[in-house]
Amino acid sequence: MHETKASRRSDVLPFRAMDVLAEANVLLARGEPVISLAVGQPAAPTPKAAIEAAKAHLAQGRIAYTDAPGLPALRERIARHYGEAYHLDVAPSRVVVTTGSSAGFNLAFLAAFDPGARIALASPGYPAYRNILKVLGLEPVEIPVDVSTGYLLTADHLAEAHRDVPIDGVLIASPANPTGTVTPPEELKRLVDFADEAGIRFISDEIYHRLAYSGGEATALAFSQNPFVVNSFSKYYCMTGWRIGWMVLPPEMVRVAERIAQSLYISAPELSQVAARAVFDATDELDRVREVYVRNRDLLMRELPALGFRDIAPIDGAFYAYAGIPEGEASATDFCRRLLAESHVAMTPGIDFDLSRGERFVRISYACGHAALEEAVGRMKVALDGR
Amino acid sequence: MHETKASRRSDVLPFRAMDVLAEANVLLARGEPVISLAVGQPAAPTPKAAIEAAKAHLAQGRIAYTDAPGLPALRERIARHYGEAYHLDVAPSRVVVTTGSSAGFNLAFLAAFDPGARIALASPGYPAYRNILKVLGLEPVEIPVDVSTGYLLTADHLAEAHRDVPIDGVLIASPANPTGTVTPPEELKRLVDFADEAGIRFISDEIYHRLAYSGGEATALAFSQNPFVVNSFSKYYCMTGWRIGWMVLPPEMVRVAERIAQSLYISAPELSQVAARAVFDATDELDRVREVYVRNRDLLMRELPALGFRDIAPIDGAFYAYAGIPEGEASATDFCRRLLAESHVAMTPGIDFDLSRGERFVRISYACGHAALEEAVGRMKVALDGR
Repeated sequence: MHETKASRRSDVLPFRAMDVLAEANVLLARGEPVISLAVGQPAAPTPKAAIEAAKAHLAQGRIAYTDAPGLPALRERIARHYGEAYHLDVAPSRVVVTTGSSAGFNLAFLAAFDPGARIALASPGYPAYRNILKVLGLEPVEIPVDVSTGYLLTADHLAEAHRDVPIDGVLIASPANPTGTVTPPEELKRLVDFADEAGIRFISDEIYHRLAYSGGEATALAFSQNPFVVNSFSKYYCMTGWRIGWMVLPPEMVRVAERIAQSLYISAPELSQVAARAVFDATDELDRVREVYVRNRDLLMRELPALGFRDIAPIDGAFYAYAGIPEGEASATDFCRRLLAESHVAMTPGIDFDLSRGERFVRISYACGHAALEEAVGRMKVALDGR
Repeated sequence: MHETKASRRSDVLPFRAMDVLAEANVLLARGEPVISLAVGQPAAPTPKAAIEAAKAHLAQGRIAYTDAPGLPALRERIARHYGEAYHLDVAPSRVVVTTGSSAGFNLAFLAAFDPGARIALASPGYPAYRNILKVLGLEPVEIPVDVSTGYLLTADHLAEAHRDVPIDGVLIASPANPTGTVTPPEELKRLVDFADEAGIRFISDEIYHRLAYSGGEATALAFSQNPFVVNSFSKYYCMTGWRIGWMVLPPEMVRVAERIAQSLYISAPELSQVAARAVFDATDELDRVREVYVRNRDLLMRELPALGFRDIAPIDGAFYAYAGIPEGEASATDFCRRLLAESHVAMTPGIDFDLSRGERFVRISYACGHAALEEAVGRMKVALDGR
């Protein structure tokens, strides 16, 4: 008997938010009144229209592989969405349906980059970017951003990084996780233009679109057809557990991504594709969920400073507040652990998102109901007053 | 405007079976009476027990991320299956639920191997193995097998390959795709023992288990706890489009795979996990489907030689016949294209499975209904007589 040694590339950091989820699930299973502000997923159910479409499809019984780039009807519906939401003409043939945006990032990175390629991205940022890049032999070039610029990564940042050592790709998320930062359209255009001129591949993470609360939401497709746009039905559309998303690709990259997807995924789950097609008709229901986020955001904008949190990101989009822990707290990991154990409120230590400065920050997801957030804030007041 | 260049590693071959599927779907959409023997998926619907479980879960509305390694109840049910089917004691903590076996292979390769590692596997074999390995910077070491040994890859083959240049991993599928070859238990033990002694990682593809028609089915877990066992609900369990499968890992590799899965998949689709748990109770329904395969197999064993096919693999397991094309046919690609265009029967050219000799072979999937297979064989008779 020997111990199996893990590969070197598998030595990525855990996604703490998922570990916190697992821990919170254990407490919940024990009947503890846990309120989770840890994971980026809506508390709201999947919209009725999607549920009904899934039920109808279940009734016919056979759930099969689809074409690797997705059901034609869903690709067409997504293409039409670009007309409706952005007044853009996108060919359905450029749309590739993916098993969540996770698959979108993996496919985009594999299609665009060979091992050793350098990809610029903001720090703090979504940890899975960094982990997927590392697993695939790519080098994340983390560009630190902070409260002084509203956590915005600009074209100037990119130009400066590219001047030092050439950059092969750049990943911009807007609205961003964990900061909620929205890249203004004119800045997004500058970034896309710079990337196009420098031959840098542009990956645009647009999974928090329709969740920008002060406006200014633009798709990178408005400025060029070269960006790899990654999107998802998990956030605005409340379909996390269905694992369904999409990409819009430069025309010449569609077959490349399809070829990889055939072997690496075969296809996205069929039932999820059927449900996703119907969810575009659920705007009324989804906008009511969004209104809860607006109220939650207002509550946090008011209460977080009062609770002693500092360097608070703008809370302009997605459903996250990224905030420095109150003075006197030793580390975000300790702070989160104690809050979960004592107050049964789960949040994610910033170390997930920023390896160098993250122990001074937490990410608070406010995709929960308003009453739950009020209760969580109340418990935090008790916990923090009691120091 | 510039053309985006694809990465070198994305230059993998297409999975022709998926291309044939896409082509067949276009014909079907036009109302053509296509019979598909191309794709490895059951024509039978998802069992009722699974459909009902999914419906009940849909009724509660919220479909969410699960823990990255899967719902605890499903991990436990899978572990119990090893007791029931193999009289083996497997801890639920060693089970990792995956988004189909596709995710299982990707995670196993990433967890076990660094770029440059050499992985031995049989040729002909499932093309996605080769493609995933290449995309991840790993080197497939294809060991040619043929009708003289019933397409079996043996411990002697492995030892010989390892003597030339050291092998880091070996992947054995039993029953195998596309050949239907079942590795006898004593040979599987020899393979596992050799791998253990030589420090070679053993990946056991067991996705066609419960579909061995002449017995002899064993799990690699019976001989060692070191193998990475990959399994799926797609084949015997008739759940392709749900994209759900599992792995059993050496204990020390679970957290490694979990860490990668957190970033690369987040979790498998929740609804599929719920349905999969219920499908273990559908054995009666599934065994009736299996009886159709047995009749289909008998039909092909009788008719393929009569139709002029040669070097026919044993047809002992899975639901594939791998057979040399009749004398006088120029290539399998031409043969398949003509059969689809003229007779509306879709099958997969062997070039998918064997780059050097595959143009002389086709894979015929007999996971369809018996009447459909009879009809397809009838059409082939007409097409081949008409030469």
